[in-house]
Amino acid sequence: LNPNIYEYIPIGWVKTSCQEIPRHWTVSQEQGELIIKEEYEPGLQDIQSGDFITVIFSFHQSPSFSQELLIQRTHHTGTIKGVFSTCSPRRPNSIGMSVVKVIKRERNRLLVLGIDMIDGTPILDIKPYVTR
Amino acid sequence: LNPNIYEYIPIGWVKTSCQEIPRHWTVSQEQGELIIKEEYEPGLQDIQSGDFITVIFSFHQSPSFSQELLIQRTHHTGTIKGVFSTCSPRRPNSIGMSVVKVIKRERNRLLVLGIDMIDGTPILDIKPYVTR
Repeated sequence: LNPNIYEYIPIGWVKTSCQEIPRHWTVSQEQGELIIKEEYEPGLQDIQSGDFITVIFSFHQSPSFSQELLIQRTHHTGTIKGVFSTCSPRRPNSIGMSVVKVIKRERNRLLVLGIDMIDGTPILDIKPYVTR
Repeated sequence: LNPNIYEYIPIGWVKTSCQEIPRHWTVSQEQGELIIKEEYEPGLQDIQSGDFITVIFSFHQSPSFSQELLIQRTHHTGTIKGVFSTCSPRRPNSIGMSVVKVIKRERNRLLVLGIDMIDGTPILDIKPYVTR
């Protein structure tokens, strides 16, 4: 057991039939479902239609990171940026974060708007969306 | 190798001498440092003084999760809430997220304002702060 490795097991998965994934949740009009494990359903009880929620997930299909990716050309504007100033899926820890809008909650499933994750994306956490 | 476990190695650690950790970054006036591994320093190059950044970290001292924690009384208001509507450190995956303001960047160290993590907190990722 390496105390320096942090391990997480998905609380659920993203389901979407979207073929062309929008580049970012700020510009996504795609709907999809967050299907949460039934055992965690009580934890969703205060999530309401209309709420924005923060979804933490794994970029599970992202190729492994290497040093030359510390500086990347951004997909959108073509600017060269340090990886920690980008939303690139190719980062030292392939963790993603998106803010989506809840359309409907039904038991352990959340229908949401603003999907920018691929079908099957493992969800690690859901948090309230709080701004500074 | 369990394909259903996602493993992350810290990119750095939080350093703070703060004794009483504020309950949330939205109300924190505490300063601290994000000390990033030297190998990742180039990835920080576009982080500027005055920027807000999103820090993803591990609640590494959080006790393990159990079913009765799916509904919790919030620390602040005392309201009873589903865990995914709270910022509690006791959650199925003990991942935290805070938005802090960069005061100064010096090589691989970021002096920041708005710390609500304890000293030694492992940092998993830094992302730009983007609002909806």
